[in-house]
Amino acid sequence: MTQQITLYTAEVEIALHEVNAKYTRYEIDIRNKPDWFTAEVNPVGQVPALTYGGPEVPPNQPSSESAKLRESIILLEFVADLFPETNMLPPDPILRAKARYFMDVFKTKVVTSWNGYFRWGEAAQSLFTALEGLQALLPPTGFVAGEFSIADVASVLFLVRMWLMLEHELLLFDAKEDEAKETIKALRQRHFERLERYTHDVMERPSFKGTFNRDALISVYKQWSADLRADKLQREKP
Amino acid sequence: MTQQITLYTAEVEIALHEVNAKYTRYEIDIRNKPDWFTAEVNPVGQVPALTYGGPEVPPNQPSSESAKLRESIILLEFVADLFPETNMLPPDPILRAKARYFMDVFKTKVVTSWNGYFRWGEAAQSLFTALEGLQALLPPTGFVAGEFSIADVASVLFLVRMWLMLEHELLLFDAKEDEAKETIKALRQRHFERLERYTHDVMERPSFKGTFNRDALISVYKQWSADLRADKLQREKP
Repeated sequence: MTQQITLYTAEVEIALHEVNAKYTRYEIDIRNKPDWFTAEVNPVGQVPALTYGGPEVPPNQPSSESAKLRESIILLEFVADLFPETNMLPPDPILRAKARYFMDVFKTKVVTSWNGYFRWGEAAQSLFTALEGLQALLPPTGFVAGEFSIADVASVLFLVRMWLMLEHELLLFDAKEDEAKETIKALRQRHFERLERYTHDVMERPSFKGTFNRDALISVYKQWSADLRADKLQREKP
Repeated sequence: MTQQITLYTAEVEIALHEVNAKYTRYEIDIRNKPDWFTAEVNPVGQVPALTYGGPEVPPNQPSSESAKLRESIILLEFVADLFPETNMLPPDPILRAKARYFMDVFKTKVVTSWNGYFRWGEAAQSLFTALEGLQALLPPTGFVAGEFSIADVASVLFLVRMWLMLEHELLLFDAKEDEAKETIKALRQRHFERLERYTHDVMERPSFKGTFNRDALISVYKQWSADLRADKLQREKP
């Protein structure tokens, strides 16, 4: 029998929903992290983080007896390992490698180039190239590894957030007027139909619908973006 | 029954040796990659790469019917998946997450900071910090996840190479005299006894001894280093 699971914020929630796990979710304000979180759950201070096992305790009083895990892809592998019968990674070793390669390209290429663009104003071209590479890994229809897997969980929230941030013009660099609109236009012209249909397919999962709150996310991101911009402008002051 | 395995160069070989797999090894000269390799095995052109399944063919005539896999950690997970009875990842989900976190820190922190130091001459301090972080993840004795696992395979060749490159002064930046000796001295002073004992323990495995050729590696690295330095000096010419 599986033991208690406490999840601190995050993408991993879709996976826990898919496997029908019983878990406690606790929201961490990344702009204002509580001391107990860095002291007792994740010294690195990042979310997502997860505790597993030990006694049932309130999330803000974590037990020293639970395992403390972090890094979103590792948490997703953990959920797949904990509920092997749900096939959140397919049993076939080749398909598992395919799902992992997708997650690796996603993390090392797509997220990196998005951060370069959105945070520092680097040319959008490397983001387009990374997204083209990601799209090329998708089969003609359906999910990354055939059946729905943790590879789909790993990518969907990022892709949804990327669109939201472009649509709401939440870029952190000192962008020229209509920068975000231009990027959206360029994305539309570059034939990302397959990636868009894929994102849409994942968003249709009950696990996505049941855990995603669009308005709350926009509100959090607007505040985060405003804070980071203020901080950046502060730092750039002579 | 498992199918044919062809491995193009690499660290993954230790894992194949550990699980007693039948495989064909083929050395790729990374300074002079054959066209068929990028065309038919790995378009990215990097090693390690692996083909699995399809008919038995010579390594330099890869079949279109085999699966083509790449990225060393993904190859290691593949070997663990293909031979689950060998426990190259432990069955316990928490220990698996621990092994994966070690590989993640290794890849994102240690390798990155080593590249910054060895290739571009960035301060050695970030390398020391990364190695301290890695060492802190080791249990008091033995291997990363208790029993020997792919996490140990992922780290050992890098750690051995790092020492070799320092000892043979194969730094790529325009280092001051005795730079490598100073770094070795600093490493010795910084209490990396646990990391050294760990590296030594892994090097004692028959899988390491049976696949590691110290002299050949030094020779390849000397040539590679000389080429890269020449190339870099070339690029820096006004």
